[in-house]
Amino acid sequence: MRIVETADAPAARGHYSQAVVHGGVAYVAGQLPLVPGDPERRLEGFEAQARQVISNVLAIVRAAGGSPATVLRTTVYITDVAHWPVFNRLYAEALGSHRPARTVVPVGALHYGYLVEMDAVAAVEDGAP
Amino acid sequence: MRIVETADAPAARGHYSQAVVHGGVAYVAGQLPLVPGDPERRLEGFEAQARQVISNVLAIVRAAGGSPATVLRTTVYITDVAHWPVFNRLYAEALGSHRPARTVVPVGALHYGYLVEMDAVAAVEDGAP
Amino acid sequence: MRIVETADAPAARGHYSQAVVHGGVAYVAGQLPLVPGDPERRLEGFEAQARQVISNVLAIVRAAGGSPATVLRTTVYITDVAHWPVFNRLYAEALGSHRPARTVVPVGALHYGYLVEMDAVAAVEDGAP
Repeated sequence: MRIVETADAPAARGHYSQAVVHGGVAYVAGQLPLVPGDPERRLEGFEAQARQVISNVLAIVRAAGGSPATVLRTTVYITDVAHWPVFNRLYAEALGSHRPARTVVPVGALHYGYLVEMDAVAAVEDGAP
Repeated sequence: MRIVETADAPAARGHYSQAVVHGGVAYVAGQLPLVPGDPERRLEGFEAQARQVISNVLAIVRAAGGSPATVLRTTVYITDVAHWPVFNRLYAEALGSHRPARTVVPVGALHYGYLVEMDAVAAVEDGAP
Repeated sequence: MRIVETADAPAARGHYSQAVVHGGVAYVAGQLPLVPGDPERRLEGFEAQARQVISNVLAIVRAAGGSPATVLRTTVYITDVAHWPVFNRLYAEALGSHRPARTVVPVGALHYGYLVEMDAVAAVEDGAP
């Protein structure tokens, strides 16, 4: 088992790791739209928050030894399904031609009033990247 | 990594694949009660929607090289927990004697006003089925 | 594939298994704050419920051949994000120095009016424990 920690994604604010790798798979923790290295900064608006969430997840996937093309599944938690088309567009831009399995989950109020959260499972090399 | 695509389940409407296979495991995308090949058709009522969701997930599992007996976990998202007994009955009929791990998640309004969504993880052969 | 069943966690009330093991990974079903062996007992209050949920998940992980230190990911479903600090404290006490990946999901009303549910993925030996 390997614990992943990168300054390219927000530092964990609770009892969790950004990702844990086992058996060639990285389990990436749910990411809120926090800005790496600037925990007090608050992004407003769905689009800015969605970009940050996608960026945070992919930064952790890369730190784990994967890439956008090795993401197997994402789960996206949104407080309002009306935001979905915007999310899908930004996500497609970030993922490129690769299309992981995905589940969209409409949820209640997220931590700190944020509008979107995402976690992921990705294929990675088992050794250190 | 192998991408799964089958006409026996609804075509993806966004930037995702029906399933992605890696390391002997198929990650199946969240399925809504859409009817394969008939995207404009709308199933009304919880029971019809639940049957379709279960059918869609199992069709993708089969296309990935698995079967109902190789499903490892499902996550079921429902807008009203009162529907649960009906879901459990239909699900038991479809899965037979095999009982995967399962999580039930009460959610807000799903896409298109649907009442139920399900995703899955299943064991499959790594090669093409 | 191996089915996990232990009297140290609540018996399944529906068509699911407490956990299924495949490929060195245990998929643990979503656990509510039910008391093993005493299904009619009802724990009141978030803290008691959170302790029981964590206990149930870890009992299943142990029965599967893992331990708190081999948990890869948890997903925690809570009806009110205001309860989060309490959950994080109890969870840290139970997990010790190990920090799995984690996702927190705010949800609607859970089964039986409970306030918290948790599932998990853990690394385990493939053979019988």
